[in-house]
Amino acid sequence: MAEEQLTPRSENFSDWYNELVLKSELADYSPVRGCMVVRPYGWTLWENIQAALDRRFKETGHVNAAFPLLIPKSFLEKEKEHVEGFAPELAVVTIGGGEELEEPLIVRPTSETIIGYMYSKWIKSWRDLPVLINQWGNVVRWELRTKLFLRTAEFYWQEGHTAHASEAEAREETLRMLDVYADFAINEAAIPVVKGVKSETEKFAGAVMSTTIEAMMGDTKALQSGTSHFLGQNFAKAFDIQYTDKNNELQHAWTTSWGLSTRMIGAIIMTHGDDKGLMLPPRLAPIQLVMVPIYRSDAEKSVVMETANRIFAELKQAGIRLKMDDREEVTPGFKYNDWEMRGVPLRMEIGPKDIEKGSVALARRDRPGKEGKSFVPQTNLVAAVSDLLVEIQAAMLAKATAFRDSHIHDPKDMVELTQVVQNGWAYSWWCESKECETKVKDATKASTRCMPVDQPEGSGSCIVCGKPAKRKVIFGKSY
Amino acid sequence: MAEEQLTPRSENFSDWYNELVLKSELADYSPVRGCMVVRPYGWTLWENIQAALDRRFKETGHVNAAFPLLIPKSFLEKEKEHVEGFAPELAVVTIGGGEELEEPLIVRPTSETIIGYMYSKWIKSWRDLPVLINQWGNVVRWELRTKLFLRTAEFYWQEGHTAHASEAEAREETLRMLDVYADFAINEAAIPVVKGVKSETEKFAGAVMSTTIEAMMGDTKALQSGTSHFLGQNFAKAFDIQYTDKNNELQHAWTTSWGLSTRMIGAIIMTHGDDKGLMLPPRLAPIQLVMVPIYRSDAEKSVVMETANRIFAELKQAGIRLKMDDREEVTPGFKYNDWEMRGVPLRMEIGPKDIEKGSVALARRDRPGKEGKSFVPQTNLVAAVSDLLVEIQAAMLAKATAFRDSHIHDPKDMVELTQVVQNGWAYSWWCESKECETKVKDATKASTRCMPVDQPEGSGSCIVCGKPAKRKVIFGKSY
Repeated sequence: MAEEQLTPRSENFSDWYNELVLKSELADYSPVRGCMVVRPYGWTLWENIQAALDRRFKETGHVNAAFPLLIPKSFLEKEKEHVEGFAPELAVVTIGGGEELEEPLIVRPTSETIIGYMYSKWIKSWRDLPVLINQWGNVVRWELRTKLFLRTAEFYWQEGHTAHASEAEAREETLRMLDVYADFAINEAAIPVVKGVKSETEKFAGAVMSTTIEAMMGDTKALQSGTSHFLGQNFAKAFDIQYTDKNNELQHAWTTSWGLSTRMIGAIIMTHGDDKGLMLPPRLAPIQLVMVPIYRSDAEKSVVMETANRIFAELKQAGIRLKMDDREEVTPGFKYNDWEMRGVPLRMEIGPKDIEKGSVALARRDRPGKEGKSFVPQTNLVAAVSDLLVEIQAAMLAKATAFRDSHIHDPKDMVELTQVVQNGWAYSWWCESKECETKVKDATKASTRCMPVDQPEGSGSCIVCGKPAKRKVIFGKSY
Repeated sequence: MAEEQLTPRSENFSDWYNELVLKSELADYSPVRGCMVVRPYGWTLWENIQAALDRRFKETGHVNAAFPLLIPKSFLEKEKEHVEGFAPELAVVTIGGGEELEEPLIVRPTSETIIGYMYSKWIKSWRDLPVLINQWGNVVRWELRTKLFLRTAEFYWQEGHTAHASEAEAREETLRMLDVYADFAINEAAIPVVKGVKSETEKFAGAVMSTTIEAMMGDTKALQSGTSHFLGQNFAKAFDIQYTDKNNELQHAWTTSWGLSTRMIGAIIMTHGDDKGLMLPPRLAPIQLVMVPIYRSDAEKSVVMETANRIFAELKQAGIRLKMDDREEVTPGFKYNDWEMRGVPLRMEIGPKDIEKGSVALARRDRPGKEGKSFVPQTNLVAAVSDLLVEIQAAMLAKATAFRDSHIHDPKDMVELTQVVQNGWAYSWWCESKECETKVKDATKASTRCMPVDQPEGSGSCIVCGKPAKRKVIFGKSY
């Protein structure tokens, strides 16, 4: 029960993160190197993320399905860039039911290939299009330098795979899902992501164009938090996804894929967390409010608990996700620290004096000390709590946005660029050549994160070579 | 678009099943032998099953988490009976990231071992107990004789794993979850399952006691549809799950595990389906009502669709899961057959005459022809539809219960037993010896399904050997 302090963020951001994930019981290391265990508190957070995304997927016409975990090795080899990208990361099943397999099976690192194969069976006519399917599941990409939620051999995600009759429709779908991700990140996770297009170097293996939502973490590094890919006809040609059009001619379909993973939990931790621990956005928090009853005697306890239990029932009935911390073996002060560490947005304290006054104390996680504390009447508590949760959600987004904006710079030359990416992003004109991209990376360790969808008008000169540039790009160090 | 008839159930139940699963687009075969693809219609059914179960798990104090897919091979070997049971069915990863692994990893066939390992890390004191965790996921048990939903190498399920301070508590949990399964099966899936205890031969590899819900399919075979196991201290000892009790003494925990899988979809198909196709219980059906607008001219169409769209919006708003079938390329008759085949509980027909009369026609899937058809006013449709769905749900359960009860027999001797298990179950006294169990199996192919929880008073003589018997058992052929 002894309280160990977290390493301060400013001292060592990476240690702070690793300690916090374990201490808050979001996740744990598994005995298999590279894999993680997502503990109930972390999984409930993921369930809330899933629900918020799944609602958006269904509103935009998508349905869920499930495709096999195991994929014949030969499938991966059908799309040249795809296999080159994924070959080094594969886990391979060579024995099944006690016998050596004739063809090894890979544990899916992503499902374009097996889904492409099934689509070629299902899609015959233009009437069968579009196909708009999503899958929630687990994937494996071999990885031994574990960082929980950010880099693990097995992780959880959703992968959408769609097939369309025209290029325009598939491109539209790619951007629609990018919008869905951005809307989710901003309005549910309170993370002010930037939507943009990946460079040729950074795009998905097998895509024509990859788009991304990029988030700035508390150490100013970028985290790619969701991607949506326009796959052109690459996979349709590799897997013969063909349909007869209205003129009865055979055509290849156009496909997309898009994914968001448990990495988002890492993004939430590193965007909002502070030296006291997690700070979870109310809309996704497993526990939105924790109640801490305070008493010194059995007599006080019975008076306090009667009211506390009534308030608990009332808030629960109204749909507030809450917890009563009635542990006897620890002090209220210990409980405050404990729930602050776990990032619960609101704490309610209720003691004998509050009972006398007919009020309770509410303390905001996002505003430390007296500033974040208010005393509110026990009447109309549902409205007061709901309002405060909305306020906290908005304040967290505003704070993260201000932090991000104050760390995006417009350097005037390479010298300045090299400086600013040490503690922020550079938003600069770029000629889109691989050469200039590599020069920046070699000199600064910053890579191109994306060419934002929202661009300034006009054009400029590449910050590296000075040649004409049509679009600005974000350079930043990244996870 | 040509309509192929299903093989009648009475002619070949197995062909009927296989054809129906494909034709209704619940699932498909995958290119990897033994694996299945669950298509959107089947997955939505599974999502509804998940929601109904998950709600019950959470109401009984459980939380969800996620444990790794890959398990060190040595883990399985720590519990002797467990490894003997599962060794022949394993898929083994021997290569990771391009290199031969030092220790092969198995793709989980079930997770007692890896979860046991983690529990031994997490559980220290009596204050940490009980641990009540469930996991939704996929497992792999090598299997090449595929039967979609019933027997596939990969399948989807939930597995609950709990740890308790006492034997009594763990036994109580085992039965609590058996009750949850039975409540779900009866009240959501309309399947009148029998709760009971498995024989020593039929129990889970590593369990002290296995309990089951057994359902009777349309061909009178039994399907084990969910199991809940009391594991004693077997896994706690194999994985050192120990805690200090209130007297500060070290104790092994008592554990349980319980699972229900996509097999339940097979149970729903084979309990309720008929020669026309699926018949889905309204509480789980992906589509509860399909609307078929009827018109012959553009003028009729515009009148009909205006009302149809208004009704659609009204029902959707009320939470009815419904679909408008406005396909132009097929006839209403084709649509009726199509949705009957897919098992949609209610069909609404709406044409020009209905518009004139201010009514609609509602046709029940569970009652063919005129008997199941009613004309109801367009006012108050939400109530009419909701009531009918409740009625259909109840009628389906009643029908399945009557079918089951009329196929459970009380044979007077082995000769009669041999006859009745050809087309039903025998409910007989049994001395609980493996010898008598084997004799019945060898003579009839019927195995012991379970010793029902609800037993008649008193005792009897074993139907095989005539020795004293304390409990009755169900003998039946099974999937």
